Amino acid sequence: MKVGFVGLGQMGAGIAANVLKAGHTLTVYNRTNSKAATLQSAGAHVAGTPAAAADGSDVVITMLADDRALESTVFGDHGILKALPAGGIHISMSTISVALSRGLADAHKQKQQRYVAAPVFGRPEAAAAAKLFVVVAGDLSAIEKCRELFSAIGQRTFEIGEEAQAANLFKLNGNFLITTVIESLAETFALVRKSGYDQFKFLEVMTESLFNAPIYKTYGKIVASEQFDPPGFKLPLGLKDNRLVLAAAEEQSVPMPIATLVGNNFLTAIAQGLGESDWSAFSKVAYRNAGLE
Amino acid sequence: MKVGFVGLGQMGAGIAANVLKAGHTLTVYNRTNSKAATLQSAGAHVAGTPAAAADGSDVVITMLADDRALESTVFGDHGILKALPAGGIHISMSTISVALSRGLADAHKQKQQRYVAAPVFGRPEAAAAAKLFVVVAGDLSAIEKCRELFSAIGQRTFEIGEEAQAANLFKLNGNFLITTVIESLAETFALVRKSGYDQFKFLEVMTESLFNAPIYKTYGKIVASEQFDPPGFKLPLGLKDNRLVLAAAEEQSVPMPIATLVGNNFLTAIAQGLGESDWSAFSKVAYRNAGLE
Amino acid sequence: MKVGFVGLGQMGAGIAANVLKAGHTLTVYNRTNSKAATLQSAGAHVAGTPAAAADGSDVVITMLADDRALESTVFGDHGILKALPAGGIHISMSTISVALSRGLADAHKQKQQRYVAAPVFGRPEAAAAAKLFVVVAGDLSAIEKCRELFSAIGQRTFEIGEEAQAANLFKLNGNFLITTVIESLAETFALVRKSGYDQFKFLEVMTESLFNAPIYKTYGKIVASEQFDPPGFKLPLGLKDNRLVLAAAEEQSVPMPIATLVGNNFLTAIAQGLGESDWSAFSKVAYRNAGLE
Amino acid sequence: MKVGFVGLGQMGAGIAANVLKAGHTLTVYNRTNSKAATLQSAGAHVAGTPAAAADGSDVVITMLADDRALESTVFGDHGILKALPAGGIHISMSTISVALSRGLADAHKQKQQRYVAAPVFGRPEAAAAAKLFVVVAGDLSAIEKCRELFSAIGQRTFEIGEEAQAANLFKLNGNFLITTVIESLAETFALVRKSGYDQFKFLEVMTESLFNAPIYKTYGKIVASEQFDPPGFKLPLGLKDNRLVLAAAEEQSVPMPIATLVGNNFLTAIAQGLGESDWSAFSKVAYRNAGLE
Repeated sequence: MKVGFVGLGQMGAGIAANVLKAGHTLTVYNRTNSKAATLQSAGAHVAGTPAAAADGSDVVITMLADDRALESTVFGDHGILKALPAGGIHISMSTISVALSRGLADAHKQKQQRYVAAPVFGRPEAAAAAKLFVVVAGDLSAIEKCRELFSAIGQRTFEIGEEAQAANLFKLNGNFLITTVIESLAETFALVRKSGYDQFKFLEVMTESLFNAPIYKTYGKIVASEQFDPPGFKLPLGLKDNRLVLAAAEEQSVPMPIATLVGNNFLTAIAQGLGESDWSAFSKVAYRNAGLE
Repeated sequence: MKVGFVGLGQMGAGIAANVLKAGHTLTVYNRTNSKAATLQSAGAHVAGTPAAAADGSDVVITMLADDRALESTVFGDHGILKALPAGGIHISMSTISVALSRGLADAHKQKQQRYVAAPVFGRPEAAAAAKLFVVVAGDLSAIEKCRELFSAIGQRTFEIGEEAQAANLFKLNGNFLITTVIESLAETFALVRKSGYDQFKFLEVMTESLFNAPIYKTYGKIVASEQFDPPGFKLPLGLKDNRLVLAAAEEQSVPMPIATLVGNNFLTAIAQGLGESDWSAFSKVAYRNAGLE
Repeated sequence: MKVGFVGLGQMGAGIAANVLKAGHTLTVYNRTNSKAATLQSAGAHVAGTPAAAADGSDVVITMLADDRALESTVFGDHGILKALPAGGIHISMSTISVALSRGLADAHKQKQQRYVAAPVFGRPEAAAAAKLFVVVAGDLSAIEKCRELFSAIGQRTFEIGEEAQAANLFKLNGNFLITTVIESLAETFALVRKSGYDQFKFLEVMTESLFNAPIYKTYGKIVASEQFDPPGFKLPLGLKDNRLVLAAAEEQSVPMPIATLVGNNFLTAIAQGLGESDWSAFSKVAYRNAGLE
Repeated sequence: MKVGFVGLGQMGAGIAANVLKAGHTLTVYNRTNSKAATLQSAGAHVAGTPAAAADGSDVVITMLADDRALESTVFGDHGILKALPAGGIHISMSTISVALSRGLADAHKQKQQRYVAAPVFGRPEAAAAAKLFVVVAGDLSAIEKCRELFSAIGQRTFEIGEEAQAANLFKLNGNFLITTVIESLAETFALVRKSGYDQFKFLEVMTESLFNAPIYKTYGKIVASEQFDPPGFKLPLGLKDNRLVLAAAEEQSVPMPIATLVGNNFLTAIAQGLGESDWSAFSKVAYRNAGLE
């Protein structure tokens, strides 16, 4: 297939490389050109605008930082919406709001284009290794056509229905669950440490019994050792996702008390100078509030 | 070995049966006699008091509901402390306070007895199937002597040191982590349901990707389907454990904001009539506060 | 002075009447015409658009429900911005975001107009009785010119500086403080009631000793007697103000844990069907969570 | 009347002096003798034990730090219970648990003695100036007999019924309300300060409009200026009262979310080294979490 790709950040670069590796014709666009060079030397074309990446493509994939970036990429003067052919497919992998995903589905439909939301779980290493989990919802014919594409970038694809925004809602809730793992571990580590015991030992007992999921192992190690730099995913992006799940919840009149608690800790982390660290660094708030360090 | 066993509730009955099955001489005591009958017909002796169960035993195991029950079993007129021989071992499997465990270690030491804290993770089914996780701390010679005993009742033993109360602290923190799983899933299920999607589908995506730990599967299913009766572990016991972890945290001046949040929901659950249900029924508070049901 | 007035809701109608009573020439505009009739019969002119109310006026006062309403009133095709003469004064009394107030100050400055933020404290009865507290910030020459106008509508004016948005920030923080009074009283009333005592007696002891402020008396009585209908100020507007203070706090990286707690209760109140009641009805969440009613 | 007085701390010393000034025969006891010297030189007798202070007295007043201190004073070997004559009155002014107050009522009744709970609102300055608010409940004949005594030490007495523990419940709830004032002001001051405005100006606007109660003025000034030393009431005592109101609430299955939030901040304050400061110093947690200082 002819695939356009917009957004070559830590996640996008890995995904795009795997698309290319799977044998597709790839045209990439990134705001800063340098990031495209590696892919270019591997055979990708480089476009000068999002529109140029979408023009004539079967599929255009976007992987951008937030709603604002995606909006300008789609709706802007040199945006995807005008350039993508009728029948063309826009796969949005960014972690964006439920509201924007709903709006994109409508906008593409009016242009006879097809829209699929396909947010992913996994950190940059997983993206590079094609080990992402891909949550897919939207136009069913488009999803069918792109199954091999999803397989090329992830270890497992979950198809969850025809309403694109459902995938975004699942993604935001999943990210929220990760923050609850981080915060709950931080609270226990603080107590274990102040009681005079070893938080790594505690983590081992947990992850080798009831909590033997990758997420407890990965973040448990990061939080126990406070290795927040360099970041895999920067803290303000974590705050952004927290705001997005709370916005989706507010729209449905659903209170999410742990989410607001974590949101407060994100703000504290930023206020205390952790804005350049990994998003899991908000766990330091639990340590500081316990008088540790 | 000659083993005494006090406390034949849902957990204790299964554990005691596995001790017997492993070939040990077993003498059981329970406040209500009827519960001892099954074990008696399988070859166990039945004692009339805790003291009688401890008298002449190499090891006496206690598995009781709370601090108060264990205190009277140990320190009471017909309690274990007076009856257990010098060198005898008390294995306390109950989920009790850090403070009481510390006190028991001291009391047994003064009597030249040996004390081991060995709280377990697992619900009654796991106890019956010898699939518990056993967290062990205390007198090292006693632990060594009891290794086979632990193997007979669990799938894995974690030895974490010489200070008995560390095992209780780990257990309480582990139970707290379980409550965070329950509460966080309930918040996401509430949002997924009110948004018009299927909480079971969401759970499937989570447990087959980043959250593929038994605890998310077990409690995810219970919370998603609201199957809280009959209880595996009653709600007021969950509140009790919440209070114990908060007491341990207060002793160390460690705030645990999610724990207090969950504690409030336990109280609400009791106030709203869920006191006879499974402890995970506090998740209904999230549903009700979202206007569901 | 020639005064235009836009927004004749429960608050605006009372304020406008007092402006008229003070002898000013008044031209009013309201989205629904019927509300203007009473004022018209008292001598006010009725304009067909916000622009018409501003056109030729010395001062135009706006008192609208939210940011969106004020934005369209100011920036819309028939909005104030185009019509207000150079040197004219826009007094914004609405409870709006800090961000919008900052934006209005800029926009008016570019048009050589003067902008004053003058949000008020007080319920509709206080507006009618000219007993409001007026918090004023913005263009200093404009404030000086309008002092008598403020005196005509309130019992006390607080001038707090040249940055208009400061007044809005004070107002939002003040409203937040009111919500803390409501929530804290609700928690105590729940405990007093379930303990078998009289919440009115408790309220009396508090308001005749340390808490003898009008706000404790007014809201204490409403919350103790659960008289939430008819509303003086509807619950979704309370949620809106909660969101505005949290937005201002997020902009400054300031966590406000009680504000998020109250925000969650607002959402629950809406989810449980209290959206048409007085904003203080979120206190019922404390009662329900205590198993009362 | 012949009055015994036990507990000459910052509060007790002032109260006892006013009892003496009112013309009663006073016998005081304090754990550390030095504190009794001033009163002795003013005409008080000094007793060597609580029992000696109660022996032959019409009334014995206790003003102690916590449950434990009061329990040993009443039930100890040289305690009040054995020494107070039949018909004698014990007035307990300490801030103690609802449960202990209930227990004291029972214990005194069995001895044909009379028990009155009379906790007070006010800081040490108010105690010295006889400006306390006294909340009274318990034996009605005893209350009648002591009315002048209450008038001698306070500016206002509230009689709230025959169940003594009601007074303690009111007192604990009142102290909780004070903590909500402190915390809510701290959150607003943090936001006002980080936004570039003056928290004293904000406080002035609030306390001269809707929040013109002494409690907002007193604590507003302390919190805005961070004058936490020397303490009027030490922080760990504030934590104790927080625990007592939560214990009373737990007994009734009433969640109190702001109280748990404040409790967490008390723990943080202690963990961060504020344990010797005034109880209102927990407000620094809000400042620190906002990145201030």
